Amino acid sequence: MKVIRTVNEMVEIATSVKANDQTIGFVPTMGYLHDGHAKLIDQCRKESQIVIVSIFVNPLQFGPNEDFERYPRDEKRDCMIAESHGVDYIFIPSVEEMYRDNSSIKLQVVERTNVLCGRSRAGHFDGVVTVLAKLFHITKADLAFFGMKDAQQIAVVKAFVDDLNFSVKIRPVPTIREDDGLARSSRNVYLSQQERADAASLYSSLKVGQHLIIDGEKNPVMIIDEVKKNIHRHTNGTIDYVEILSYPDLKAVTVINQQIIIAIAVNFQKARLIDNLVINEHGIIVRDPFE
Amino acid sequence: MKVIRTVNEMVEIATSVKANDQTIGFVPTMGYLHDGHAKLIDQCRKESQIVIVSIFVNPLQFGPNEDFERYPRDEKRDCMIAESHGVDYIFIPSVEEMYRDNSSIKLQVVERTNVLCGRSRAGHFDGVVTVLAKLFHITKADLAFFGMKDAQQIAVVKAFVDDLNFSVKIRPVPTIREDDGLARSSRNVYLSQQERADAASLYSSLKVGQHLIIDGEKNPVMIIDEVKKNIHRHTNGTIDYVEILSYPDLKAVTVINQQIIIAIAVNFQKARLIDNLVINEHGIIVRDPFE
Repeated sequence: MKVIRTVNEMVEIATSVKANDQTIGFVPTMGYLHDGHAKLIDQCRKESQIVIVSIFVNPLQFGPNEDFERYPRDEKRDCMIAESHGVDYIFIPSVEEMYRDNSSIKLQVVERTNVLCGRSRAGHFDGVVTVLAKLFHITKADLAFFGMKDAQQIAVVKAFVDDLNFSVKIRPVPTIREDDGLARSSRNVYLSQQERADAASLYSSLKVGQHLIIDGEKNPVMIIDEVKKNIHRHTNGTIDYVEILSYPDLKAVTVINQQIIIAIAVNFQKARLIDNLVINEHGIIVRDPFE
Repeated sequence: MKVIRTVNEMVEIATSVKANDQTIGFVPTMGYLHDGHAKLIDQCRKESQIVIVSIFVNPLQFGPNEDFERYPRDEKRDCMIAESHGVDYIFIPSVEEMYRDNSSIKLQVVERTNVLCGRSRAGHFDGVVTVLAKLFHITKADLAFFGMKDAQQIAVVKAFVDDLNFSVKIRPVPTIREDDGLARSSRNVYLSQQERADAASLYSSLKVGQHLIIDGEKNPVMIIDEVKKNIHRHTNGTIDYVEILSYPDLKAVTVINQQIIIAIAVNFQKARLIDNLVINEHGIIVRDPFE
């Protein structure tokens, strides 16, 4: 595995890989890799001849009161994990390398932002698509892998790529879970022992919603109500939201007659956890919601 | 020459051209081709193995009071001209083919816009870069050719491409002129006989400015004054602007000690003409201002 720190070197390598007609798979990350990233890398490795992982804590996607400075970084460990999963190139540019002074262009995401986590993170997705536009060009990625855990992000990115005709194909990767169903997250370590045990009920609550739909319930208000009750019953966390929206358009729905997402966010004492299921109108889990 | 009307077909063709390791040169136009376009195409032909020309009157770059509906179109003649200049593919998509309903993304140019022609065309360059982002991706252009006649446009596009790390290289092509120095433009036909004769003084006025700099004048205010006097002396047109700015940054300058543009816009009875020179601090014309 080779470590690349400059845009020019990454472009040169990607150009010569493309000249050899090899498929480039790309996993963009902010580093501090965990099992979720490893799953993305493994999937990328399966589908691509050359695997590029980027590590870049992108200042543009942090709000003024968010934790850009405090965001955890461990480059040495990241490189070990990446190498052990068969990554060919790990791209680790500095902020100065990625952003020139006086950028001439602002990208603004104007759909899918005022719901779910986007509602409380103004400008977040603008920063995400800006860095991805750059990274897709720099790496010349044919395929880019994103986790379904952040279902809003991948929906925004897929629409961005389609609207501007990027050549990269967006590949969704299913959320990986602990044995009790809890979605893997770096933040799970912030849970107390009791919270950790209770947190499994986020997933079981989503399943309650799914089974109501399988049983024929079409009213999202009813389903949201049952999901919330289940979370309250099993945790002391505070619900930030439980939402049912069309997917990937993320529009409000009044009746379940299409592909939808059930998404939840719950605040525990020191961690905010999110989870979701994307299912069709019959309640069946959808493997690739963009197909 | 093949006429392409869908994004998918254009992408397929560009993909197979790239798989053959051939260089793609691209000339984006709004059609109604004239000698200026022909010069761009000829230069593109020289430098590229495959030449793609697009014809797309881009609604996004017209203001609400501008002439999108009235913009002249003559597809048959355009195709004849393109074919006679050795174009391989002419891409003529419909508006519906290029823009989906509910685009998720807005691009905003935030530098170089509030000067020259940009000052009176709010949002114009936002539309320009949006369609170019799409066209660069669709055509997989290695090189894209733009005329120096619209020096502000090419400066904006070059910065956009650099800031988002597009792989396309922007190639400036010098303005072509009539024997008396008048820059070629479709709009020259709207000039009366007297105006046409007088219009040569736009170029001669720029040369007056240039020669002041060659002779050691460093004060842009003085130079602008002399250029304006020369225009007034020789035409009945109304000056919209005479500006001297750094190039390609398009910032105000108080002393001529760097690469600059002298740019003018003059309104005649039925035509607004623009022209410019990009010169170095010694007054010498610069062939490629981005080198």
